Amino acid sequence: MVGGGRGAFIGAVHRIASRIDDRWHLVAGALSSDPERARLSAEDLNIAPDRAYSDFREMARAEAAREDGIDAVSIVTPNHMHAGPAIAFLEAGINVICDKPLAATPEQAQQIAAAVQASKARFILTHNYTGYPLMRQAREMIERGDLGEIRLIQAEYAQDWLTESVETAGDNKQAAWRTNPEMAGAGALGDIGTHAFNLLSFVTGLKVEALLADLQSFGAGRQVDDNAHVLLRFANGARGTLWASQVAPGNENGLRLRIYGTKAGIEWSQENPNVMTFAPLGQPKQIVTRGGAGLGTGGNRWTRIPPGHPEGYLEGFATIYTDAADLILGTGDGALLPTIESGLDGMWFIGACQRSSQAGGEWVSR
Amino acid sequence: MVGGGRGAFIGAVHRIASRIDDRWHLVAGALSSDPERARLSAEDLNIAPDRAYSDFREMARAEAAREDGIDAVSIVTPNHMHAGPAIAFLEAGINVICDKPLAATPEQAQQIAAAVQASKARFILTHNYTGYPLMRQAREMIERGDLGEIRLIQAEYAQDWLTESVETAGDNKQAAWRTNPEMAGAGALGDIGTHAFNLLSFVTGLKVEALLADLQSFGAGRQVDDNAHVLLRFANGARGTLWASQVAPGNENGLRLRIYGTKAGIEWSQENPNVMTFAPLGQPKQIVTRGGAGLGTGGNRWTRIPPGHPEGYLEGFATIYTDAADLILGTGDGALLPTIESGLDGMWFIGACQRSSQAGGEWVSR
Amino acid sequence: MVGGGRGAFIGAVHRIASRIDDRWHLVAGALSSDPERARLSAEDLNIAPDRAYSDFREMARAEAAREDGIDAVSIVTPNHMHAGPAIAFLEAGINVICDKPLAATPEQAQQIAAAVQASKARFILTHNYTGYPLMRQAREMIERGDLGEIRLIQAEYAQDWLTESVETAGDNKQAAWRTNPEMAGAGALGDIGTHAFNLLSFVTGLKVEALLADLQSFGAGRQVDDNAHVLLRFANGARGTLWASQVAPGNENGLRLRIYGTKAGIEWSQENPNVMTFAPLGQPKQIVTRGGAGLGTGGNRWTRIPPGHPEGYLEGFATIYTDAADLILGTGDGALLPTIESGLDGMWFIGACQRSSQAGGEWVSR
Amino acid sequence: MVGGGRGAFIGAVHRIASRIDDRWHLVAGALSSDPERARLSAEDLNIAPDRAYSDFREMARAEAAREDGIDAVSIVTPNHMHAGPAIAFLEAGINVICDKPLAATPEQAQQIAAAVQASKARFILTHNYTGYPLMRQAREMIERGDLGEIRLIQAEYAQDWLTESVETAGDNKQAAWRTNPEMAGAGALGDIGTHAFNLLSFVTGLKVEALLADLQSFGAGRQVDDNAHVLLRFANGARGTLWASQVAPGNENGLRLRIYGTKAGIEWSQENPNVMTFAPLGQPKQIVTRGGAGLGTGGNRWTRIPPGHPEGYLEGFATIYTDAADLILGTGDGALLPTIESGLDGMWFIGACQRSSQAGGEWVSR
Repeated sequence: MVGGGRGAFIGAVHRIASRIDDRWHLVAGALSSDPERARLSAEDLNIAPDRAYSDFREMARAEAAREDGIDAVSIVTPNHMHAGPAIAFLEAGINVICDKPLAATPEQAQQIAAAVQASKARFILTHNYTGYPLMRQAREMIERGDLGEIRLIQAEYAQDWLTESVETAGDNKQAAWRTNPEMAGAGALGDIGTHAFNLLSFVTGLKVEALLADLQSFGAGRQVDDNAHVLLRFANGARGTLWASQVAPGNENGLRLRIYGTKAGIEWSQENPNVMTFAPLGQPKQIVTRGGAGLGTGGNRWTRIPPGHPEGYLEGFATIYTDAADLILGTGDGALLPTIESGLDGMWFIGACQRSSQAGGEWVSR
Repeated sequence: MVGGGRGAFIGAVHRIASRIDDRWHLVAGALSSDPERARLSAEDLNIAPDRAYSDFREMARAEAAREDGIDAVSIVTPNHMHAGPAIAFLEAGINVICDKPLAATPEQAQQIAAAVQASKARFILTHNYTGYPLMRQAREMIERGDLGEIRLIQAEYAQDWLTESVETAGDNKQAAWRTNPEMAGAGALGDIGTHAFNLLSFVTGLKVEALLADLQSFGAGRQVDDNAHVLLRFANGARGTLWASQVAPGNENGLRLRIYGTKAGIEWSQENPNVMTFAPLGQPKQIVTRGGAGLGTGGNRWTRIPPGHPEGYLEGFATIYTDAADLILGTGDGALLPTIESGLDGMWFIGACQRSSQAGGEWVSR
Repeated sequence: MVGGGRGAFIGAVHRIASRIDDRWHLVAGALSSDPERARLSAEDLNIAPDRAYSDFREMARAEAAREDGIDAVSIVTPNHMHAGPAIAFLEAGINVICDKPLAATPEQAQQIAAAVQASKARFILTHNYTGYPLMRQAREMIERGDLGEIRLIQAEYAQDWLTESVETAGDNKQAAWRTNPEMAGAGALGDIGTHAFNLLSFVTGLKVEALLADLQSFGAGRQVDDNAHVLLRFANGARGTLWASQVAPGNENGLRLRIYGTKAGIEWSQENPNVMTFAPLGQPKQIVTRGGAGLGTGGNRWTRIPPGHPEGYLEGFATIYTDAADLILGTGDGALLPTIESGLDGMWFIGACQRSSQAGGEWVSR
Repeated sequence: MVGGGRGAFIGAVHRIASRIDDRWHLVAGALSSDPERARLSAEDLNIAPDRAYSDFREMARAEAAREDGIDAVSIVTPNHMHAGPAIAFLEAGINVICDKPLAATPEQAQQIAAAVQASKARFILTHNYTGYPLMRQAREMIERGDLGEIRLIQAEYAQDWLTESVETAGDNKQAAWRTNPEMAGAGALGDIGTHAFNLLSFVTGLKVEALLADLQSFGAGRQVDDNAHVLLRFANGARGTLWASQVAPGNENGLRLRIYGTKAGIEWSQENPNVMTFAPLGQPKQIVTRGGAGLGTGGNRWTRIPPGHPEGYLEGFATIYTDAADLILGTGDGALLPTIESGLDGMWFIGACQRSSQAGGEWVSR
């Protein structure tokens, strides 16, 4: 693991997720660039001192040289610190599991892409919401035509934690880097908008052809967007909207997806992810549960416990790690895993939204 | 009443709504332009034969001349047939209660506006959703600052009844006129989009300064929009979206309003209108019920029965009629009633969306 | 109307309900036993002075004698005042529409039953919740076997308005008579428990064979039950529970019905009455909406407006009045209307619960 | 671990739960009484061959003798197989974490209790639902008086998987032992009723003084109860009901708890466990989320990720394992852990219900 030392947030999530299905052990880390903090963090996590690095380049070199070297590295640093480690490990031939978005700038993204191209190692982006069983179920249903031709996609991801300018408080490390243009590259757009964008792409299989965005920074003194309204046009003629906001009081992690086709519609919300509605035109709406009645084999494949016993965010995340293990060991094809292409697509989304909005709200095509 | 004869839909709704609070009696009507149908429809409704007209002009003249002439006329014809009767009754000095949208074309709308200007009679537009107690409650809460400065408005009205091109079936009279450009003037935009637009304006008191629309006609051979995605910019800097659709399977009358300010957010859905959530930043979200605990006087004023006993669409509609009675009798000021200005605003909304979309999706300012 | 003068509650509800479908006009009343209050109340309601009575016996006599006498009388007095007027009007040959429960005591109930027996006039009890379209839909579904053999019935009606002993406040007239043993005959049991009992009987068509009740009076100084837990055994071997409470904070009018058979289950809640779930074993649960997709003719018959536009409490109540009009005019068979048998059944339920609980919680059979 | 070999269900759940917070490693097991199956199951789980036992007595002896012997054993066998291993490990001085209910018979339960009494080792029962953060939050709120004096408790746990007699199919191992009187000791009552009973006791801190039960076996040929209706009387005068059913179509794991006091009420459902409503009398109902706004320190203590990112069944279960680790290491007091007393209380509940029902439904006191 690179990043994820004391005081970090998402690193701990990755560690739990990787443990759930007992497919990974954490044995090495460059958990902080501060040597002392790296050492103490490694101690906390029972990493042997000789595999507790303070420099990711050294870690890549050393682990590549060991016979019992790591199978993969998790990169859980802020966005602007993805490219450096990703490239170092890819060049060392070590598989990379990287937090999203791909990078803070298009240039960094392209450098990673080049390194992926040049390396035999795998690159996996943790768009974890694609691990929710019902999202995979939805993808299957759409693929086999249950919704008919898709016409409409309404995606949103609303939070409220940046309603006030908490980043100026000094002690809010998460808020600070996520609202720093250089470290984050974008605000709500990159932090959560890319999740919504990735998820709708994953579930529908449709490509956005053009978009138009209206971005705002409502927080006093805020230097990145905290609200994004985006219109979407898809290659097949479908239309959609994507709303990402961190200033909508009452929303914790309101990632919601609604998809309507010529034959049926589906609706899902991340905060109660074990339930989805499926509405075939002219019939009563159905409540589809994770692993529940009538799903066929679909929804049961990525689930650990019986229906009615809720799985949550960590389990969905775990599925990404488990799929990654299968891909790396050759026991699975990783067909559902987010790749470098997902990452580049997300970077296009961020950049296109920013260009559209800076132009006063104009259409931007691929 | 003008319109609303046998086979009509909204006329019956107006009649029930007007009866609920026992403030109106239906005593005269030009229920159809077909004399025989007008006669039979009047008979159905116990209207005396001498007050059963087949021509609205004759009705306006005759009722104006009677000592016991009508206090007001309800106009419940298709959109392109609002201007004629509205102007006739206004000129005869008779108060007009008119279905929405104001008209099928901007020209018709201006003619009505001129007639309102020239007449001492009242003009009331039945944007009935403003009669829901919790929408009036929301308006009060926003007015007194409970939400702080408004930043975001997410409005939508989704239906599914035009997912297939049912208007071509021949026997679907409602679908036929509502998808006929000359009779309706617009599709989803006019039929339901104007409701969402009116409601968000009513509740927030904010003015849309500019908008950008992406309209679609998904139904095969359809000549009006059946889906509208609209970005909104408000005078105070707030941003919003409005989505109106008649092709979203699983949606019956999904009118939903979400409003977020610097201090709190509210969310409401028309299909379960006796409940609204209110989320003050940093506190648990509250479930506010119609007439329920903790509302102050607000929510109780426009309600007939105790909380937990649901009131619905007809009761909200009835409140418009009751307010209208009070306004006309001078026992109320009608401050909450939709007026000719609401109607003209709705016509601007329709026209601006159409112009924006025809230009490929460009911003249109007032 | 007998009762329902100034300051009364349920009388106004009956008046609105009777108006909604335009089948009744209020033309006479003994609205109060206080002559002055009767006169003023009649004036409020535009009842002609010669038909504003202060004595129900006089009213029964006079109206029976008039050629344009009333078609039916609504009795909306407290429970102990049902028998007197009901018998008087039945003896005068005038149809009676009576509020529930049938009476305050078994003796009164028997006297009414005898009068019904002896009269050619109709007797209808306003168990209004049977007028909700989805409850009639549920009844149809059960009748035609959609649920298989019924095994379990979970009924409840929970409120919170008597959590504190508000009846001692002096100015709470509703609380005062409803907690007065002589006027009400029972507490939560009679006021709301009989509604739940009637509704489950109506929907399932099953007969309770034996019951066991644990009644409580939690309110300080309260002389009637404010909470009732009842176990039910049905003739066909089904089991159930009925919970009625007026001391459950957070419940406004929480009337809920859940029914499970060998093939499927249904669940419904009065506070959002336009929605019901139907769960066929081994298939996804369905969201059945009032008048919505896939119902067949059932749910549409007793509804006024399209699905997604909610109807509420008053519309359900109106359906009882409309069915009553049809029954009296011979244009309907009144097959779904609550009758004197429903009333006697409810009185058995109250008495059996009281006997069971007084014995410390023993089984009581029919 | 004892039990939990190939083909078992709950063992895998315990293993995931124990891993989530990285506090336990599985290093030894008697996973099956069949030696070959024990060996293969151990291999699956990377247990060293010398610590893969086929006899739990041998395992207790051997592990007690090792310097690196296990810190605790998980017993995940069917109910009738709890006593044997529990006693063996307790006698060997090894801490025991045991699945619920405590045993299949009162005699077995007493034997375990005696062994706990005689041993210095800890005994922990995995009533995992007490690990849900909001249930611990509710307990805290009740303890500090937020609900006032508790008056009413409505608990239920409804499933539908035994609606048909699937245990006769031959290949349904879970259904087979759970409906076998000797292996299970009781049906729905033991399998899920004890969970509801334990949870209500945990949350309210109230003691059931007397109960009355009506048990049924609806499934054709079924030898244990599949539905239980139970009336409860608490020491403080509160009343309640508990409903456990495995024959209610549409219910997956419908564990629900509703508690009402003199000052407020709370409602919670296990299927969406990150949300609870709190209704202070006379104020709007609040939606309390796991870790969300306004909770004080309470709800955040037993949670891993931010509010709005759902935690589920496995995380709640993990909290039990983590608390157990803290108790055993002395880094926590285990105050919230279910103990042998919880187990004996559950056995009393099962036995009392059975005696009450066999007597035709009579009250049974402690």
